[in-house]
Amino acid sequence: MRGITADQLAEAHQADLAIEKDESVHFEHAWADPVSGVVYCLSEAPSAEAVQRVHERAGHPADEVHPIPLEA
Amino acid sequence: MRGITADQLAEAHQADLAIEKDESVHFEHAWADPVSGVVYCLSEAPSAEAVQRVHERAGHPADEVHPIPLEA
Repeated sequence: MRGITADQLAEAHQADLAIEKDESVHFEHAWADPVSGVVYCLSEAPSAEAVQRVHERAGHPADEVHPIPLEA
Repeated sequence: MRGITADQLAEAHQADLAIEKDESVHFEHAWADPVSGVVYCLSEAPSAEAVQRVHERAGHPADEVHPIPLEA
């Protein structure tokens, strides 16, 4: 979403947080670049499908969901 | 890097941390997926070029560096 504002990002993140428990997902963080329009969300989730269901219900389906099982 | 292990990710992250100050970069976090081989790093930095210089000196140049000025 090109031109996304800090408020819009916060609103989208809150919309996820409001319903995440329904899918046992926790959205930890979200970042965005208004120029490219790319938004990144970091979440703990039982599956990619669960993440996508929350995003869809919140009104902003993800283009891609990637697993990142390793962390440092 | 397909098949990357948790130890290898930690080692790569440590290699960045060891020299990050030279470029006024701070690498906050790194994640990876051994299946796809994709590694993601989150950093605070003065520029994308500074991030890439650290990664190159640490022996693992990034394919892409994206700005994410907004955070929620």
